[in-house]
Amino acid sequence: MGIVLGPNQYGKAENRVVRIFRGTTRHEIRDINVSTSLRGDFAAAHLTGDQAQVLPTDTQKNTCFAYAKDMDLREIEAYALALARHFVDDVGSTVGARVSVEEYGWQRVSVGDREHDHTWVRTGPDVRTATVTVEGSGPDQRHSVVSGIKDLVLLKSTGSEFHGFLVDEYTTLRETHDRVLATSLIARWRHVGAPVDWDSSYADIRQVLLATFASVHSFALQQTLWEMGKAVLEAHSEVAEITFSAPNRHHFAVDLHRFGLDNPGEVFHAADRPYGLIECTVTRDDPATRDDPAASGLAWDAVPAFA
Amino acid sequence: MGIVLGPNQYGKAENRVVRIFRGTTRHEIRDINVSTSLRGDFAAAHLTGDQAQVLPTDTQKNTCFAYAKDMDLREIEAYALALARHFVDDVGSTVGARVSVEEYGWQRVSVGDREHDHTWVRTGPDVRTATVTVEGSGPDQRHSVVSGIKDLVLLKSTGSEFHGFLVDEYTTLRETHDRVLATSLIARWRHVGAPVDWDSSYADIRQVLLATFASVHSFALQQTLWEMGKAVLEAHSEVAEITFSAPNRHHFAVDLHRFGLDNPGEVFHAADRPYGLIECTVTRDDPATRDDPAASGLAWDAVPAFA
Amino acid sequence: MGIVLGPNQYGKAENRVVRIFRGTTRHEIRDINVSTSLRGDFAAAHLTGDQAQVLPTDTQKNTCFAYAKDMDLREIEAYALALARHFVDDVGSTVGARVSVEEYGWQRVSVGDREHDHTWVRTGPDVRTATVTVEGSGPDQRHSVVSGIKDLVLLKSTGSEFHGFLVDEYTTLRETHDRVLATSLIARWRHVGAPVDWDSSYADIRQVLLATFASVHSFALQQTLWEMGKAVLEAHSEVAEITFSAPNRHHFAVDLHRFGLDNPGEVFHAADRPYGLIECTVTRDDPATRDDPAASGLAWDAVPAFA
Amino acid sequence: MGIVLGPNQYGKAENRVVRIFRGTTRHEIRDINVSTSLRGDFAAAHLTGDQAQVLPTDTQKNTCFAYAKDMDLREIEAYALALARHFVDDVGSTVGARVSVEEYGWQRVSVGDREHDHTWVRTGPDVRTATVTVEGSGPDQRHSVVSGIKDLVLLKSTGSEFHGFLVDEYTTLRETHDRVLATSLIARWRHVGAPVDWDSSYADIRQVLLATFASVHSFALQQTLWEMGKAVLEAHSEVAEITFSAPNRHHFAVDLHRFGLDNPGEVFHAADRPYGLIECTVTRDDPATRDDPAASGLAWDAVPAFA
Repeated sequence: MGIVLGPNQYGKAENRVVRIFRGTTRHEIRDINVSTSLRGDFAAAHLTGDQAQVLPTDTQKNTCFAYAKDMDLREIEAYALALARHFVDDVGSTVGARVSVEEYGWQRVSVGDREHDHTWVRTGPDVRTATVTVEGSGPDQRHSVVSGIKDLVLLKSTGSEFHGFLVDEYTTLRETHDRVLATSLIARWRHVGAPVDWDSSYADIRQVLLATFASVHSFALQQTLWEMGKAVLEAHSEVAEITFSAPNRHHFAVDLHRFGLDNPGEVFHAADRPYGLIECTVTRDDPATRDDPAASGLAWDAVPAFA
Repeated sequence: MGIVLGPNQYGKAENRVVRIFRGTTRHEIRDINVSTSLRGDFAAAHLTGDQAQVLPTDTQKNTCFAYAKDMDLREIEAYALALARHFVDDVGSTVGARVSVEEYGWQRVSVGDREHDHTWVRTGPDVRTATVTVEGSGPDQRHSVVSGIKDLVLLKSTGSEFHGFLVDEYTTLRETHDRVLATSLIARWRHVGAPVDWDSSYADIRQVLLATFASVHSFALQQTLWEMGKAVLEAHSEVAEITFSAPNRHHFAVDLHRFGLDNPGEVFHAADRPYGLIECTVTRDDPATRDDPAASGLAWDAVPAFA
Repeated sequence: MGIVLGPNQYGKAENRVVRIFRGTTRHEIRDINVSTSLRGDFAAAHLTGDQAQVLPTDTQKNTCFAYAKDMDLREIEAYALALARHFVDDVGSTVGARVSVEEYGWQRVSVGDREHDHTWVRTGPDVRTATVTVEGSGPDQRHSVVSGIKDLVLLKSTGSEFHGFLVDEYTTLRETHDRVLATSLIARWRHVGAPVDWDSSYADIRQVLLATFASVHSFALQQTLWEMGKAVLEAHSEVAEITFSAPNRHHFAVDLHRFGLDNPGEVFHAADRPYGLIECTVTRDDPATRDDPAASGLAWDAVPAFA
Repeated sequence: MGIVLGPNQYGKAENRVVRIFRGTTRHEIRDINVSTSLRGDFAAAHLTGDQAQVLPTDTQKNTCFAYAKDMDLREIEAYALALARHFVDDVGSTVGARVSVEEYGWQRVSVGDREHDHTWVRTGPDVRTATVTVEGSGPDQRHSVVSGIKDLVLLKSTGSEFHGFLVDEYTTLRETHDRVLATSLIARWRHVGAPVDWDSSYADIRQVLLATFASVHSFALQQTLWEMGKAVLEAHSEVAEITFSAPNRHHFAVDLHRFGLDNPGEVFHAADRPYGLIECTVTRDDPATRDDPAASGLAWDAVPAFA
């Protein structure tokens, strides 16, 4: 009984590409961190060290920079699609490619009441993301586009309760009808259908997430996430499903009675660890969507072992 | 056509538990970071905010600390198994649990030529890991145990080549017959069969990984990883498969000729980003192993959307 | 010849205090990280372990939280002054106190065209800072207030040159008349005179820094910093001096000619390390300011050994 | 009344230099992170952007790499001294230079019972440091050498008490006669007199620190640090003074009685923030040492504003 190579992929991670558009004196900027992964029959590279089918990660890096010029890098989804398709279509040994991009935000500096032409200040901490997967060739080629946001830090100082939960012999938590609710959200949503205006789709979904987090009276972070996901799917037919990973950043009211002071929800200790971690997916009840050539599996599955 | 809840899980992440054993004046220490995730029918918590089936993450935290005492936390695999089984067996709404542990190493301080009884200095940077998944109840209950190591930083200053690779129009890399090879390794291996002496299994596998990295004359990081995985599987029948995630930490020889100096592989710039990222699995060619009740899927699959 | 205790201080670092103001349904939020250091005659604590003169760091933590309520924590400078004066005035053994605060920014979430009453999204990455030092008692008590900003990431895509520099046998850099200039700025400015409206002083100085960075045609980061400092001092008579620590975050134009592409300042690799590090102070040529009871030494000097 | 340039310095930070010695088949490795700062009359660079006196930071980077070859980089103190003297002696505009180095540890991998010739595994987390300052020219040139260690994480599970402390109205801490004492130590010591064998001096001082931390029965972290410093100065006449910055990493015993379990110092929660921060210097009561041309001021003073 032998030992064999299982799932594998390789690429260049975290290429820090900055693209300036200087067609006019009013420049534009895109600032991204792009990672590539190629899949295919790379058994020889592993078993004998034969690199004949291996496009070096250094070449993948070069391609990321060249495409930033050639493809007029604007929307990260379109850029990632172009890159991934190039690897699958043009590199013989590659049958699948995943390209992941983080985009950092910049805002024009204002001087007086005028926006400056070529000076920016970083915004954040939230970061826009996109992960594109392309697999197969010719008419059988499938692809998926997952857009997202991470490090989106949200807090509400009231409008959050937590009670009625399951109790066992290790339970000491007390019920509350008014607490601080805070999270540093990761959200990722899978697109279906034809390409959209990626920038405006992103901007609107970000706003739907914010507004729903604000508007929902929360009985649990789970419920808030569900409502946020539902709102995105209701407003954006191009989104097939959305997934959340949300740490519950605990804010503990400090007992100030010891010092002769009241503390009616005014002074909190913001704890680092441990934190709750709530993860869920909100999806359409729609076989057609699930059977879409850009189906869920392709989008979400990492090489299984890398989950 | 409706919108429905998809895969979901929740738990308490990064509980920092330190366990001291003080049965004699010669203490022992275990220092861990443990995260729990529960799966089950938590739809009501999402859809209506009804928490009746939800064991609070605060309770999960308490349980981590209580089990550190009750279970005599020694080997992280046994501790994680006990915790995960407790959640699945004793918490009605929970049908699956995953418990992940990082363990930080400590070495006794020596005073003169004697090891001190109750003083330690941290070792590292490598960290031991374990992830246990338990699913189902009664005779159908399945479980998997994945042990691992991360942040294992390795370097060899010769004995590494890279040439004969695929060339396209974006290729500028030059072939080399002598380079520095360095990585910060993540390795995870899935156990099958009866529980073993987890500590000695871990110690030996760590040593096999080190010795193989050293001994293999490398034609690619892929090949080195394959040989490392093969060596582990050959030496440890309790391991069904092993997976690697290995950044290729590039060390670029600096051109010193500009300053009238030779540089025959002596002075390098250690680059941060980008880095190559090589990922692969080495597994047994054995249907029985793959069909094992503790099969690969249970071990590796995250909730798909969280891949 | 003996061995003696030299400079020393102790305190509680990184208390994460969140203060909610809920006088009306429209809440306000302040989110800070506060650290305290006490100085005095703590020799006994070191030499014999006698703690009789030592106010525990745990007590300092409690005081930070109590003062967040009691002092109506609004402007971090006023809060830090109150805390530092309390330690020096009310804790017998303490003759000097330094309180450092970081404040994280939050912006109200908008729902439709209305700002939400109690929901915020984090802004950044820049962080507001304040360090207050109080020393001595009664009429001889002196204090200093240093306000600042850190992690202020700025970039201009043109309007920056670098040439005419000193050349030696290790110089390989080529002159440039058009480069990207980027930094992640730390600036700290010392106040003199009566307390001001700290919030509006801060907001205006931040804007002066941004606008000057944008407006100056740069021949070196040094020159840009000088102009930024000069602009702050010219606009704000309450500021005696300002100091900068500015990494030069290098953006290297990528050679795309190898791939048949031009790159006229459009595609850059944003490098991590090494980075230039430019530090300077801009100050008033004014003996009176320098001899001010809140003179420079008190403000800037750490215990010397902790510089 | 004008605005003038105050203290200033500039350099290249975090050059990641790896030096391999391959004189025989048994290689040696040094892995460092080196930062340079130059001081002098750089007013023109600030005031008018004139770079004629400015050695570019890029050149400083080149010099770091060239000296790693030329100077046979072995001991970081000797390497830093050579670099700093070069800048002061050979670069006309430079009157002072500070060179700071971090060195990362590597241990040979063993294969069977033999150490491998050219393969290493990183050790840590503690990092060796050195900061060298050189000022002035000719016979008036002064220099200081400060060696150190950081990220030295130490823990003792008993032998630590804390009681008899000052109590005020904000005190809630309870006295303890048995607690966990843990820190992540930064220690830096200033050398006087002729150069020593830096490597063996470092190794022995590290061991003195460890052994003293273990041996002292602690009534406060202050007292432990004092004893550690005293032990170093008693054993090493080449050290004039030593300074410590030591976070008190709190380990809180978890209340397990709620779950029917005892917890006699066995299960702890390791907290992240806030932490105590204890800083002190242990020095010789010796005017001659203090008046040494390599006196304390030169060693410790940052440009004041950068403290």
